Amino acid sequence: MDRRSFIKKAGLAGAGAAAATTLATPAISQNTQDMVIVSTWPRDFPGLGLPAQRLAARIAELTDGRFNVQYFAAGERVGAFDSFDEVASGNAQAYIGADYYWIGKHAGWAAFTAIPFGLTYTEIDAWTKYGGGQELWDELAGEFGLKNFACGNTGVQMGGWFNKEINSADDLKGLKMRIPGQGGQVLTKLGASTVSLPGGQIYENLVSGAIDATEWVGPYNDYFLKFYEAAKFYYWPGMHEPGAQIAFGMNKSWWEGLSATDQAIIQAACNEENARTMAETNNFNGEYLQRLINEHGVELKEFNDDVYAAFGSAAGEVLEEAKAHSDLAARIMTSVEEARASIGAWTSISDMAYVQRRNKALGI
Amino acid sequence: MDRRSFIKKAGLAGAGAAAATTLATPAISQNTQDMVIVSTWPRDFPGLGLPAQRLAARIAELTDGRFNVQYFAAGERVGAFDSFDEVASGNAQAYIGADYYWIGKHAGWAAFTAIPFGLTYTEIDAWTKYGGGQELWDELAGEFGLKNFACGNTGVQMGGWFNKEINSADDLKGLKMRIPGQGGQVLTKLGASTVSLPGGQIYENLVSGAIDATEWVGPYNDYFLKFYEAAKFYYWPGMHEPGAQIAFGMNKSWWEGLSATDQAIIQAACNEENARTMAETNNFNGEYLQRLINEHGVELKEFNDDVYAAFGSAAGEVLEEAKAHSDLAARIMTSVEEARASIGAWTSISDMAYVQRRNKALGI
Repeated sequence: MDRRSFIKKAGLAGAGAAAATTLATPAISQNTQDMVIVSTWPRDFPGLGLPAQRLAARIAELTDGRFNVQYFAAGERVGAFDSFDEVASGNAQAYIGADYYWIGKHAGWAAFTAIPFGLTYTEIDAWTKYGGGQELWDELAGEFGLKNFACGNTGVQMGGWFNKEINSADDLKGLKMRIPGQGGQVLTKLGASTVSLPGGQIYENLVSGAIDATEWVGPYNDYFLKFYEAAKFYYWPGMHEPGAQIAFGMNKSWWEGLSATDQAIIQAACNEENARTMAETNNFNGEYLQRLINEHGVELKEFNDDVYAAFGSAAGEVLEEAKAHSDLAARIMTSVEEARASIGAWTSISDMAYVQRRNKALGI
Repeated sequence: MDRRSFIKKAGLAGAGAAAATTLATPAISQNTQDMVIVSTWPRDFPGLGLPAQRLAARIAELTDGRFNVQYFAAGERVGAFDSFDEVASGNAQAYIGADYYWIGKHAGWAAFTAIPFGLTYTEIDAWTKYGGGQELWDELAGEFGLKNFACGNTGVQMGGWFNKEINSADDLKGLKMRIPGQGGQVLTKLGASTVSLPGGQIYENLVSGAIDATEWVGPYNDYFLKFYEAAKFYYWPGMHEPGAQIAFGMNKSWWEGLSATDQAIIQAACNEENARTMAETNNFNGEYLQRLINEHGVELKEFNDDVYAAFGSAAGEVLEEAKAHSDLAARIMTSVEEARASIGAWTSISDMAYVQRRNKALGI
């Protein structure tokens, strides 16, 4: 922390920083923190990279500069998929990314981003904060020396970009698709060949033909990645990530050394950004969907019942396999299933029932 | 702020408060703030009162005690519906409540809580934060010397508690119902006699027969109010408040005198609580709905298409009447309509489409 911002903090009530600089600086150190944040998103990436940068800046703002926050986008300090190790090892204090990237380390990570046929944004937020999700996340993250919070969500994703129509499950066979996490495992079961590429590497692979198809997020996020240049069919609704939650993963030892106030500030900043990312995404998805269709000739397609049934069957198998990984993975996945049944039943008679009636009445 | 918490703030990095108390206190005042918060909710009221108290405590926590926050539930300092004037006049710094209680002062207030056939939680949050909602709220609140943020949401509400079945719009005629805001205006158009009672006064009026019906929120919130003792029919889905947003309304002059850091902390606390209240409500609604049915013999009923069509028609008239109030009210309501069309279309092919398929596949 520099002298000016310290004095501002210690200034007289109602007096601004300028007036306060006439006061002597007391010889007491502040509770300053160096905080290096690495991310799985490229710099200035709309929809995910910019929210991560916004969160980093917000932590500096809320601590009035006591936290010296340095943010590194994917590749600026370590590669996207090295973020986890960078933080677990203590080389950096936090990462921002999708925890399902780490399912190779533990099957349980999938649940804290998204699982196929899993929870929507409002459902996963309810589960995380009040349904036991955070406690299970703490247990899993603790095994790796981490402490994680949700810090973003992009809602129900589109099913992805395809360079041919998907009229039956057979059309998925042999498809080379970028789709990470359990969603990728579902597609693999249906005969596709899947890869997990970080966001910044998808476009080049799609254009070169190294992959035939990809999912990313939804209209707003996808628009800027120009997938429409190589794949015209844009399918809905995605089954693979119905409410993909972004993680703020901190080095646990560092987290535990923070004051209660600083812990509360970080938690509040994450909680705030979690909803803000969702609000931004929802606000712009409708507009950008129209732009994709009108400006770029994208063809909007709905997965038919047969394809969805195949997805559902494979998703059930993937879920059981995740449970078989370990006791903790089983408890995590069972907890998601219970939340899905209880909160999901409520969603049916509230949001779903209401939006159906409203949109029908108004022709939306 | 007291001496101990000041020293804690100024303590050496990594040193706890106890160790830091051995340091001398410098003779510099802190940027302390007295903050009186009044509320429209009774004390310890599950679902709304407790979240309001949580938010008040969180502001004290995030400012490390620099804010001396005093919270007064409804009736403890002023009556629920006097909260607005208490803050606008500067007698208190903030209120927590539902802004549609103030539609008698300006028709535009309705939009920042909920309007019939309006926005769901995810939609109103998108509109408020990114679709122009906050700017319009600032304009309206500014006319009354206020600055408001969203600080809670209870999602799609149940249609209410009735002591008889509602099989046609005719069954609403002559009904005495507690339903505030534009929802009340819709019911009035359909021949009901409506009142706007604060939450703490509903039960006694329902039990005494002064009212025949009431809406409040949903299963979790309503459970504790024991409406089932006087009305057994519990209807879904409510059309009147599809995502009722709770307001944190501050005295604007006081707000403008805060430092940028303190403004950011209050905004973050409100944003965090906005999502937290929704998460809590969604997590418990499913469970409490079952408890209402199984423990108290509540009969769950769905509004039929004829009743919904009557609601829709009346809601359209109410919306037009609100626009006729003033230029500002017209701009507010038009902005809501635009958000409903754009974001609502996205909701149809994302959350609604996905939850339909998922719940059907899994028998939820």
